[in-house]
Amino acid sequence: MASAAIRPTIRFSPKASTDPCLPPWDTCHLFSRCRNRTVTSLRSSLISSDLLGTNRSVDPVLKCNRIRSTVSATATPAEVMEQTPPKTDSKISTIVDVDLGDRSYPIYIGPGLLDQHDLLQRHVHGKRVLVVTNTTIAPLYLDKVINALTSGNSKISVDSVILPDGEKYKDMDTLMKIFDKAIESRFDRRCTFVALGGGVIGDMCGFAAAAFLRGVNFIQIPTTVMAQVDSSVGGKTGINHRLGKNLIGAFYQPQCVLVDIDTLNTLPDRELASGLAEVVKYGLIRDPEFFEWQEKNMQALLARDPSTLAYAIKRSCENKAEVVALDEKEGGLRATLNLGHTFGHAIETGFGYGQWLHGEAVAAGMVMAVDMSYRLGWIDESIVKRAFNILQQANLPTGPPEVMTVEMFKSYMAVDKKVADGLLRLILLKGSLGNCVFTGDYDRKALDDTLRAFCKS
Amino acid sequence: MASAAIRPTIRFSPKASTDPCLPPWDTCHLFSRCRNRTVTSLRSSLISSDLLGTNRSVDPVLKCNRIRSTVSATATPAEVMEQTPPKTDSKISTIVDVDLGDRSYPIYIGPGLLDQHDLLQRHVHGKRVLVVTNTTIAPLYLDKVINALTSGNSKISVDSVILPDGEKYKDMDTLMKIFDKAIESRFDRRCTFVALGGGVIGDMCGFAAAAFLRGVNFIQIPTTVMAQVDSSVGGKTGINHRLGKNLIGAFYQPQCVLVDIDTLNTLPDRELASGLAEVVKYGLIRDPEFFEWQEKNMQALLARDPSTLAYAIKRSCENKAEVVALDEKEGGLRATLNLGHTFGHAIETGFGYGQWLHGEAVAAGMVMAVDMSYRLGWIDESIVKRAFNILQQANLPTGPPEVMTVEMFKSYMAVDKKVADGLLRLILLKGSLGNCVFTGDYDRKALDDTLRAFCKS
Repeated sequence: MASAAIRPTIRFSPKASTDPCLPPWDTCHLFSRCRNRTVTSLRSSLISSDLLGTNRSVDPVLKCNRIRSTVSATATPAEVMEQTPPKTDSKISTIVDVDLGDRSYPIYIGPGLLDQHDLLQRHVHGKRVLVVTNTTIAPLYLDKVINALTSGNSKISVDSVILPDGEKYKDMDTLMKIFDKAIESRFDRRCTFVALGGGVIGDMCGFAAAAFLRGVNFIQIPTTVMAQVDSSVGGKTGINHRLGKNLIGAFYQPQCVLVDIDTLNTLPDRELASGLAEVVKYGLIRDPEFFEWQEKNMQALLARDPSTLAYAIKRSCENKAEVVALDEKEGGLRATLNLGHTFGHAIETGFGYGQWLHGEAVAAGMVMAVDMSYRLGWIDESIVKRAFNILQQANLPTGPPEVMTVEMFKSYMAVDKKVADGLLRLILLKGSLGNCVFTGDYDRKALDDTLRAFCKS
Repeated sequence: MASAAIRPTIRFSPKASTDPCLPPWDTCHLFSRCRNRTVTSLRSSLISSDLLGTNRSVDPVLKCNRIRSTVSATATPAEVMEQTPPKTDSKISTIVDVDLGDRSYPIYIGPGLLDQHDLLQRHVHGKRVLVVTNTTIAPLYLDKVINALTSGNSKISVDSVILPDGEKYKDMDTLMKIFDKAIESRFDRRCTFVALGGGVIGDMCGFAAAAFLRGVNFIQIPTTVMAQVDSSVGGKTGINHRLGKNLIGAFYQPQCVLVDIDTLNTLPDRELASGLAEVVKYGLIRDPEFFEWQEKNMQALLARDPSTLAYAIKRSCENKAEVVALDEKEGGLRATLNLGHTFGHAIETGFGYGQWLHGEAVAAGMVMAVDMSYRLGWIDESIVKRAFNILQQANLPTGPPEVMTVEMFKSYMAVDKKVADGLLRLILLKGSLGNCVFTGDYDRKALDDTLRAFCKS
């Protein structure tokens, strides 16, 4: 069977996933999963009074609901599976550290964190804060965030700028609104920008913080699964150009990322599923145990079981933190986090920004990348099926929209950031589940065949 | 005598400078000149075959015209004065290193460097180069630079983008033209941007290089004294906002700076003088011997004596490199390079970008800052006179244009990047010549008095 036969763009209803035995990790690929986790100083730990400062009070809820969620740097797969939290406990509070020397920062994950005012305030620099958010999120969480920033601290003043919602506004004109607000309000270098929203807000606020007065502090408060598991972590910021996604931007790290999983209560189902595409990605490229866990827990994730969601977010952040710590500026390894994204960005640009959510385009792109990997003979058919099935379970597209043609893909993929000296490099799976390569060394026919299989013309 | 009496804005004809004995360096100020030059690894040396790569040929002209121009890290003032090159030698080729760890780079200074093709080509990354220049410089030097980039190297292809000339085009709309060109031409991360022009081109090309695909390599080829002695060195890039200068940008270091002093042959007199304002600045804030040298050599500089110009550029770059190596991101020390700039930026913004050249506004701003320092009782009247006289000799303005009011100054100075938590910090001279402070701790009355003395309303 050619995997290319799998190309519907309609949504499938969930069904049970396959669950094959996982082969042992192999060691044949340059960018295969890092064996020795101790090469990073990834720290995943409970929020403790020590970490928050010994003189600061810790919310009783946090104290009472701590559970063991630390992932050891040398944990075996079996141990990792055991660390899945019990479904009945909805409170998980962890810190995942992103280790980047003097640019290191914590990711706080848990429920009710926006009520932990101290957590946010300790990362504010200066007396003035600019909250950047959008028309959807502002009515839901802006007051809560302003309260978290100012409660018990009368010295802090907060301004906000509310942008239109959606990927199509991730452009220079909208970015200028942030600069206009900051400059007209006479913000100076001793200030903090806070991104409150999804990936678009985080990317734009982060780039504005990087460029305003050549760099001010910023904090990420992601409110979508997509932003919580991926875009808020690692310092990639930027805006789109009419010819391509994220072509203008900066690597710029936040002071902290605060993931209050309670904000997911207001997230539309379609947005939830979009974020799960990136969760699936981590399993496919480097974490087969996590993939297996997802196969077992996809329904609980879609049903928004808090502890299941929190675990998926934590595990995703750990994967991302580990990669970013090893390759902040995307010299090679970090590019593997873009599985399916080159196809996906072409869909987003060609179909029109905002027609599909980012994760929807990435899901279709991952199916195409997996298909191409199979055509190259680099993976077994079982991986093709499992990837297709889990994305289908998550109610995500498994092929591009009909409007996309082979020529559109080729044209938009040619401006991808991973092109080097004219050669398009792709992230492709190779070997057993959880292994991938980032390479320009592949048979062009396989790419052509995949594009033709997924496009009507 | 109140120094405020010195406020003409007309150009004065040159006259002889004063030449008082210099008091010994004092040690009372936080930001006074660094005593122990060995804390930086500033290297100022001849271009040698070793530095250029042992297998590369060195132009015979360079070989024949080497002179001793190395400045020892521990040179005494007397030694430094002796190192002034003989006036009869027009060939000086030096390298000043900017020591920033893995972001270190050389500044090449000398005549005929654009004929040293190897010098430029060794800093090109990838196969594609985008030269960013303007309508004034393109007819003069674009072909020469393209030839320097491609001569003997058929693998390199060069595109160019020619922007309108002038400070008023240092904005987001013009910046977008660089991105448009790079993206439409399908440049990828393995490319090099080359800034060919003055400070505006360098700042815009540098920011474009910092943000395009989140960062590509770039090279500075400054063609004005202003850019050669100041703006091309140290990695400050950016654009203006309608409310203030350089409010949007990045710290982003080039691969190298190539100062071919032959390009000054086509520089208008007014531009030449503008650049000398920054040369004078280095003397005032940290290098009294250099200031004394300038007092003796201003006429030779204005007459474009090649060796005198080359020495002024080299010595300025050494001063700047030393400061930038100690404080790349302007935590404190680097701000002292902005003597007169807060007043000057207010003039540029208030009077209209491009009405006055940057150095003209800075010259007027330095006279105002020196005046204020005197009103505070921080410097002797002799320094006020010497600063005034040398700027007057250089045919630079010594006060703001008449259109500037006290309120305009206050309004535009309030958005300066050196404001912190609402407090305007200024660079002011304090102590003997060559000493300054960067401080918000000054009597507000002195600032008010200075503004009133220099403004009609």
